[in-house]
Amino acid sequence: MSKTMELAQRLKNLRAGNLYRQDFYWTWDKTDDELEAVFTVADALRDLRQRNKSARIFDSGLGISIFRDNSTRTRFSFASACNLLGLGVQDLDEKKSQIAHGETVRETANMVSFMADVIGIRDDMFIGEGHKYQKAFMDAVDEGYRDGILEQRPTLVNLQCDVDHPTQCMADMLHIIHEFGGVENLRGKKIAMTWAYSPSYGKPLSVPQGVIGLMTRFGMDVVLAHPEGYDVMPEVEEVAKKNAAATGGHYRKVDTMEEAFQDADIVYPKSWAPFAAMEERTKLYQAGDRAGIDALEERLLRRNARFKSWTCSEEMMARTRNGKALYLHCLPADISGLSCPEGEVERSVFDRYLVPLYKQASYKPYIIAAMIFMAKVKDPVSALTALENAGERKRF
Amino acid sequence: MSKTMELAQRLKNLRAGNLYRQDFYWTWDKTDDELEAVFTVADALRDLRQRNKSARIFDSGLGISIFRDNSTRTRFSFASACNLLGLGVQDLDEKKSQIAHGETVRETANMVSFMADVIGIRDDMFIGEGHKYQKAFMDAVDEGYRDGILEQRPTLVNLQCDVDHPTQCMADMLHIIHEFGGVENLRGKKIAMTWAYSPSYGKPLSVPQGVIGLMTRFGMDVVLAHPEGYDVMPEVEEVAKKNAAATGGHYRKVDTMEEAFQDADIVYPKSWAPFAAMEERTKLYQAGDRAGIDALEERLLRRNARFKSWTCSEEMMARTRNGKALYLHCLPADISGLSCPEGEVERSVFDRYLVPLYKQASYKPYIIAAMIFMAKVKDPVSALTALENAGERKRF
Amino acid sequence: MSKTMELAQRLKNLRAGNLYRQDFYWTWDKTDDELEAVFTVADALRDLRQRNKSARIFDSGLGISIFRDNSTRTRFSFASACNLLGLGVQDLDEKKSQIAHGETVRETANMVSFMADVIGIRDDMFIGEGHKYQKAFMDAVDEGYRDGILEQRPTLVNLQCDVDHPTQCMADMLHIIHEFGGVENLRGKKIAMTWAYSPSYGKPLSVPQGVIGLMTRFGMDVVLAHPEGYDVMPEVEEVAKKNAAATGGHYRKVDTMEEAFQDADIVYPKSWAPFAAMEERTKLYQAGDRAGIDALEERLLRRNARFKSWTCSEEMMARTRNGKALYLHCLPADISGLSCPEGEVERSVFDRYLVPLYKQASYKPYIIAAMIFMAKVKDPVSALTALENAGERKRF
Repeated sequence: MSKTMELAQRLKNLRAGNLYRQDFYWTWDKTDDELEAVFTVADALRDLRQRNKSARIFDSGLGISIFRDNSTRTRFSFASACNLLGLGVQDLDEKKSQIAHGETVRETANMVSFMADVIGIRDDMFIGEGHKYQKAFMDAVDEGYRDGILEQRPTLVNLQCDVDHPTQCMADMLHIIHEFGGVENLRGKKIAMTWAYSPSYGKPLSVPQGVIGLMTRFGMDVVLAHPEGYDVMPEVEEVAKKNAAATGGHYRKVDTMEEAFQDADIVYPKSWAPFAAMEERTKLYQAGDRAGIDALEERLLRRNARFKSWTCSEEMMARTRNGKALYLHCLPADISGLSCPEGEVERSVFDRYLVPLYKQASYKPYIIAAMIFMAKVKDPVSALTALENAGERKRF
Repeated sequence: MSKTMELAQRLKNLRAGNLYRQDFYWTWDKTDDELEAVFTVADALRDLRQRNKSARIFDSGLGISIFRDNSTRTRFSFASACNLLGLGVQDLDEKKSQIAHGETVRETANMVSFMADVIGIRDDMFIGEGHKYQKAFMDAVDEGYRDGILEQRPTLVNLQCDVDHPTQCMADMLHIIHEFGGVENLRGKKIAMTWAYSPSYGKPLSVPQGVIGLMTRFGMDVVLAHPEGYDVMPEVEEVAKKNAAATGGHYRKVDTMEEAFQDADIVYPKSWAPFAAMEERTKLYQAGDRAGIDALEERLLRRNARFKSWTCSEEMMARTRNGKALYLHCLPADISGLSCPEGEVERSVFDRYLVPLYKQASYKPYIIAAMIFMAKVKDPVSALTALENAGERKRF
Repeated sequence: MSKTMELAQRLKNLRAGNLYRQDFYWTWDKTDDELEAVFTVADALRDLRQRNKSARIFDSGLGISIFRDNSTRTRFSFASACNLLGLGVQDLDEKKSQIAHGETVRETANMVSFMADVIGIRDDMFIGEGHKYQKAFMDAVDEGYRDGILEQRPTLVNLQCDVDHPTQCMADMLHIIHEFGGVENLRGKKIAMTWAYSPSYGKPLSVPQGVIGLMTRFGMDVVLAHPEGYDVMPEVEEVAKKNAAATGGHYRKVDTMEEAFQDADIVYPKSWAPFAAMEERTKLYQAGDRAGIDALEERLLRRNARFKSWTCSEEMMARTRNGKALYLHCLPADISGLSCPEGEVERSVFDRYLVPLYKQASYKPYIIAAMIFMAKVKDPVSALTALENAGERKRF
């Protein structure tokens, strides 16, 4: 039996029917079975591709992508996932559109969704705004569908908001699962999600939040560490605590990178901005207070600079389990001596983990495709079986 | 019998064979039967989509879009229409191309059309230029096809020029037809195409021109109203008069918005620039006279400001038939108190008509697809029948 | 028997199996049989298209294009070729990506190649850099495939580097072959690749290099002419000499355009930058020496201006065989009195050759498609036969 058919068997036992026609905002909206279904389908789609089986579930159709921040890997991951399933991609480039001319979110949402099957939105720049935008967009799409403006209701894949980054964290998690030989081997493993110094400021909080919100669901010992003042959203910490309690895992905060790294099996050192400062920044942008923004930036950079010792050095890595923790990063990383004088990670550490880092990233297109698959296909087990028995992707 | 098959029956009785392999510049180039065929196919394609039937008439192929002005809904409508029929889209972004390096229209036309099935052009900025550009482009494509440079001759869909905006006005018209329960119910209905105040200047004339050029063909009472000096192209007014005479309808001009709205069944209040001023602007741009352009802009904005009372207020709407005329706009609208202090329409009016406005816009991708369909398919009745009996768009 | 089937027969006798899964950097990496296979498949794909046969060899898949310089015809040629074969296109726009944030080539290469079948790169701006970038990119992709990051290894089509421009020169050559009624008629024909004056500076050397590197393989008398100091890369001249020796043709350099044009059967007058100056420019850019760049530009423009007599005038054309040599240009050309006061070619000459020039350009999408076809299809003869017997591209 092929791997895909084995995975289809596993899928049969999961109660994941509620993913059908639903949006994917945050992992904590979803049940364990639903997340496992996404992982399972992602693995199946990857296996199909590896064996040159077509995974087209659409004869035609569109994925709409809206990137309100620069992006390489997420943009290409989304485009690849859509193509894999048979969808074309149309990017809403806000600079080329008339949105600046006073179009509302509701109007835009309807105008770009006429024939959309999937909407992928990345809007991570402003705390309190990213998720709100996605929600407003999809509410408008709901109304448009109900009112007969749209023939079908597209579903959302959150490509990163101010709260969660589910396609990233699910890809990270699938990478961990494979590196450790299965989810059953993760119980008790220690993962350190830590802040790290970067010479830039204002990086989104969605990765650390997404990580503690997701990885506390697998019985792991999840440790968050950051300098004072770099807290993440308290709501997400609540999610992490609840998750840990429910799965027999742990969630805790420690004050130093050293403590977090001590005997860790997995480390995820990454810069992010202080939550409160990001709230302040949102307000300054809304007020158009350019001088205030500049002053805030300078203050934040100065504050960051006080924590340059928070870096994933060889010394730091030596503290981890046998000195060999799995190093994770969502990329691109600020690499000391390569992309900046002092950054999140020492060059020799980064270089040693290059292959696993790219492998980690390589799950993202399959995770996105699996999210779309589960939202669009009513009977995913039958669909995987049909794809297994159908034609080749490269026909000759 | 499905709606699509009913529509295919209706199509059988229409003499629309001349649409095959022809460009779509202006609605008044086309016969009544040809326009009805486009409406009919648009409805059929929408019905197919609603029932998850694939409408792919191409196994592969390209639609080329050239937007010489910003666009959201037309861009997405064109991309959606192409995707629906099985075409990929390639956008000619003049900033990324070498056109600035002295390429002629003839050269560009050939160079982007190697494998083009459809060319969609929006060029509405300059009076006397938009249509000329489209014509020059398609003449070059003709020559290229004749000379064996191109294996097939792509057909044009005019996505807006300085003269007509056929995809918009056909979508508007199909919306009207459905709102009134059929074209047979439109005889004698009064439609008011009126100028409205906007704090911006230089909006194209193609919508009012397209509206009076098209909507005078259905026995309606078409009224155009604008302040002195905001005339549209006299050639198009001639078309409107001829159409009205031929269909037993009326075309007339009145001097005030009040008179136009009085007992109207449909209103279309929208800003546009004075024709003569737009001619002047074209010359100033050609001469590169920046100071002249600025002076003209200031003069036009000052002139516009004298007509702030031309706004679609609740009072104005109250004059229409039972106070309930169908309100149309091509979007985005300048909404008083939302996108600008004073604009084309009062916010409460706009909000009340939001759903019909989006519905109106939602016909555009199907109109474009129908134009392509009729230009590309030799036997459209058979093709619709084949699509009815063929596979599903979303396969699982 | 159809032309495609005749071409498939010819393909049977060519030893071109080594093209399978290989990158296409330079024509001189490839054997004569391999180049002939590309020409043969290009003609077959064109014939299939002409007869409305689908040439899709992919059910889904992606071509990734990276243009590090502006482009119209190459961009559209690549997009057309991909579409013809069933691939979607995703363009890596470095401005929209996070590459500026310090991403390495290796990282980018992996991140955009997750589901890539083909990579098309244009990087011609800097001597010593273009090829190096493509090589680094593909080495990274190799590693990514080996390490299990990528499910398949995409293949490269060099869309122009600092050394060769194989898709252009192969298209030029196929044009010549057809104009002269077959490769067997080319023996002894004189082709003049000459420098020509342009009011711009810094044009790539890849076209003259590609031309002498390729066209010396067909027994022709290849003559290179340029003013002193405008030498091309000596390595490529070595290739040209070796090619000529092997095929009984000639490669030689002359000092004047007049001598080169004398009795020529084919002329290719085109501006390029002096090799040494381009090396200097690369260093200035690397050092960020803006003043140095400006000074160099001024110096080069002044030097160019000394050679305004190097222009493809009617007088110059009159020297060619019967005054009727085939005039080639890769477009866009600097046309005296049209795109610039004095340039590479006189307007009346350019106008007279408009149709063959466009025809020349029209081979490029088919050459690119043939390169992809040969790199992706294990048994190209069977594949062409299957396409011949399969469905139509425009289905109705």
